[in-house]
Amino acid sequence: MSSLTIGAADMEELARGAAILGSGGGGDPYIGALLARQALQQHGPVSIVGLPELDDDDVLVAVAMMGAPTVMIEKLPGLAEIVAPIEALAAGSEHPVTHVVSAEAGGINSTIPVAAAAALGVPLVDADGMGRAFPELQMVLPTLYGITASPLAIADEKGNTVVLRTIDNVWTERIARVVAIEMGTSVMISGFRMTGRQAKECLVGGSLTLCRELGRTIRVAREEKRDPVAAAAERLGARQIHEGKIIDVERKTASGFARGRAQIAGADSTMEIAFQNEYLVASSGGVVLATTPDLIIVFEHETGEPITTEGLRYGQRVRVLAAPADPRWHTEGGLALVGPRYFGYDIDPVRVRLPAEEA
Amino acid sequence: MSSLTIGAADMEELARGAAILGSGGGGDPYIGALLARQALQQHGPVSIVGLPELDDDDVLVAVAMMGAPTVMIEKLPGLAEIVAPIEALAAGSEHPVTHVVSAEAGGINSTIPVAAAAALGVPLVDADGMGRAFPELQMVLPTLYGITASPLAIADEKGNTVVLRTIDNVWTERIARVVAIEMGTSVMISGFRMTGRQAKECLVGGSLTLCRELGRTIRVAREEKRDPVAAAAERLGARQIHEGKIIDVERKTASGFARGRAQIAGADSTMEIAFQNEYLVASSGGVVLATTPDLIIVFEHETGEPITTEGLRYGQRVRVLAAPADPRWHTEGGLALVGPRYFGYDIDPVRVRLPAEEA
Repeated sequence: MSSLTIGAADMEELARGAAILGSGGGGDPYIGALLARQALQQHGPVSIVGLPELDDDDVLVAVAMMGAPTVMIEKLPGLAEIVAPIEALAAGSEHPVTHVVSAEAGGINSTIPVAAAAALGVPLVDADGMGRAFPELQMVLPTLYGITASPLAIADEKGNTVVLRTIDNVWTERIARVVAIEMGTSVMISGFRMTGRQAKECLVGGSLTLCRELGRTIRVAREEKRDPVAAAAERLGARQIHEGKIIDVERKTASGFARGRAQIAGADSTMEIAFQNEYLVASSGGVVLATTPDLIIVFEHETGEPITTEGLRYGQRVRVLAAPADPRWHTEGGLALVGPRYFGYDIDPVRVRLPAEEA
Repeated sequence: MSSLTIGAADMEELARGAAILGSGGGGDPYIGALLARQALQQHGPVSIVGLPELDDDDVLVAVAMMGAPTVMIEKLPGLAEIVAPIEALAAGSEHPVTHVVSAEAGGINSTIPVAAAAALGVPLVDADGMGRAFPELQMVLPTLYGITASPLAIADEKGNTVVLRTIDNVWTERIARVVAIEMGTSVMISGFRMTGRQAKECLVGGSLTLCRELGRTIRVAREEKRDPVAAAAERLGARQIHEGKIIDVERKTASGFARGRAQIAGADSTMEIAFQNEYLVASSGGVVLATTPDLIIVFEHETGEPITTEGLRYGQRVRVLAAPADPRWHTEGGLALVGPRYFGYDIDPVRVRLPAEEA
């Protein structure tokens, strides 16, 4: 770790890195960064604790925003809403929460937990449940380890709270999703309570500091007139699979998700990327080049600014990277949760071939 | 009160009376009676306590089934599901529940609380929150007195539970409704925690024993070859507004409600009755004869068996009564909650004219 705290000055780099790992989804991290910056200015920097530093009996809860990212932009949560679900959980538990952690490393859900940790005055764990962003609540590695999402608390900005105790994490997702939509499509949630020992086993370590480092890498490359996308690719062990101009974007918000597809015309071929909050399948001329669970990331061509699915616009010149996911996502259980077939694509997962494997 | 307990042998009469006060809705009380009979046989009779006998600091919770009655028939709750929401509430409270009460006097929600009281071993209060059945959760007199539905617990038969804490009773309804639909359209709920003092002020007293007495009145009239509908009308202070044959029934289940309309051809005119779980508006030749909040009740012509909206069939010969609701429903606040305009009918409420007022 490069530092033991995160302060207001770190938020821009953290947000840019979160937009990269968000793989197009997870909401606009800059919105979360605004909130986090306010909270950090008000409450001071947040301590960052690595997984190896956790005590076995520490008590972690994940905090996240749930809903369609389109709505988040119009409906920013306040600090009271961000901590409300954690407080609702605490009211029903004998074990005080010692640490907050991100459910996903990507998008708004990398930056919102900074605000929650600041407001609550507890450390934030340098880890997350996915190593990227995914659209549904059960899509975290803890599910593979039998960690239950529930009790899961949901809060809206009006003051309504809901606490779910469900038989499995898919039911948590189903019920939380309809509650989120009824409450106004975008809510704060907290759950996945786990011990320090469980966290060491089931989370992806280092993802928070990786976000900040990625953001910094892009900035430094720009300042030094180097290629920011190449710098990010090197840090991620990623491979560029396309570059070109966006010639079409279709999207609709349905059942609380932002679904759609983009066409990117390149020199020799046109790539199509399908998304459901996150980029899920990249194909070109009928050949699938990358799929979930690996990360598909779209960058603005010159600046290396990552572009979310919501930020896709006709005419943008972009470059597309594919980066390897945590290897546990490529197991049978992992693919059942987040493989292409789960999302309705009748194709086998295509694992990104890295330059080192090409020889 | 004619008796201080309710036993298995009382359930048929209680259910028939509940079908009358249900005003066509509230689900099939005989289904709830089956469950209650099982619970009473297993746990013994349930003590019935009148409102005047409550101590001011008693703690009451209402228990009810929520969802489309059509589904209830296919998906009977077990005793574990019936008590689950009450136990979920108890887990978050310092005040043990001393009494169970019915949210509505009508349909399955008059008989299910008997099962809950038997299984929990607590007395049942001879009262309810409406004096009839209504389709939405906030439609109880306690809402007019500022009693909150939340914390409200919801449980399904799979073992999922949800606890809501909402800013008002309309939000409780909104969120509970989508949760109920996602869980399978029919769930058990418990909420409206109140003290004995509050109960005396805001509930409708005597409705449980009224149900049993109405059921008994019908049975005795049949045995004595008297007119059972006339006997029920006399006990209710009701007025017959139509008799005839059902010539058309339209219905659909939408958003968790059973909506529709029935046409009843009489000697001189055809009556149309619109319903949304309950019978809401009865009109004939363009003249509105009775509306919510008063009770519109449909009886089988000869036997005097009350017919729920789900039980309406082409060709049935029926008689229609209108009975006065609790007068508090006719206040401005009451009509805002359950008047015809709330249900989308652009008409003024028509209060039933009783024979005594005709002179």
